[in-house]
Amino acid sequence: MSTPQQETTILVGKKPTTSYVIATVMSFNAGAKKVILKARGGAIARAVSTAVMIRDRFLPNQVRIADIKLLTDKVTGQGGKERSVAAIEIVLERV
Amino acid sequence: MSTPQQETTILVGKKPTTSYVIATVMSFNAGAKKVILKARGGAIARAVSTAVMIRDRFLPNQVRIADIKLLTDKVTGQGGKERSVAAIEIVLERV
Repeated sequence: MSTPQQETTILVGKKPTTSYVIATVMSFNAGAKKVILKARGGAIARAVSTAVMIRDRFLPNQVRIADIKLLTDKVTGQGGKERSVAAIEIVLERV
Repeated sequence: MSTPQQETTILVGKKPTTSYVIATVMSFNAGAKKVILKARGGAIARAVSTAVMIRDRFLPNQVRIADIKLLTDKVTGQGGKERSVAAIEIVLERV
C-alpha cells in the first residue's frame, strides 16, 4: 500500500486555469493535506484564480489559504543574461 | 498645511508595471504608512511584480508586505451577465 503524499506542489503555467483546478482537487482527493501552487510572471494571475476557485467554489469550507509568499526569481534568458521575475507561492490547506 | 494621507490605494490595471512602481514610491515619499495595491484578472501579475520590485529593489528594508488577500469579485459583463473574477489586495507597509 502506498502512503498518500501529504504535500503536493503544482507548477502553474500556460494551460487553462481549469487544468490546475482539476489537478488541485485531485491532489486533495488523493489525501494531500497541503497543495502548493507555484507560478511566475504572467502565470501568477492563473495561480490566484485557481486558489480562489478552489476555496470559494469547488471545495468551500474544506480548504483555506494558509499562506501566500511573493518572491523574486532569477531567470537566465536567451544569451545567458540574468533577469528578475516575480513569483508567487500559495499554500492551500485542508481545514 | 495638509495632513498626509496615511493610507493610499492604487488600482493596478493595464499600464506598464513601472507606472505602478512609481505611484507606490511617490505615495510612500508623500508620507503614506500603507499602500494597498488592488488588481483583478490578468492585472494580478502586475500587482505582484510591483510589490516585489518595491520590496526587493526600490525600497528594500523600508517596506514590507504586511498582508495579501485573495478575493472573488463579481463583475457585470456585456449584456448584464454576472461573472466571477479573481482579485488580489496587497498591503505594503513602511517598516
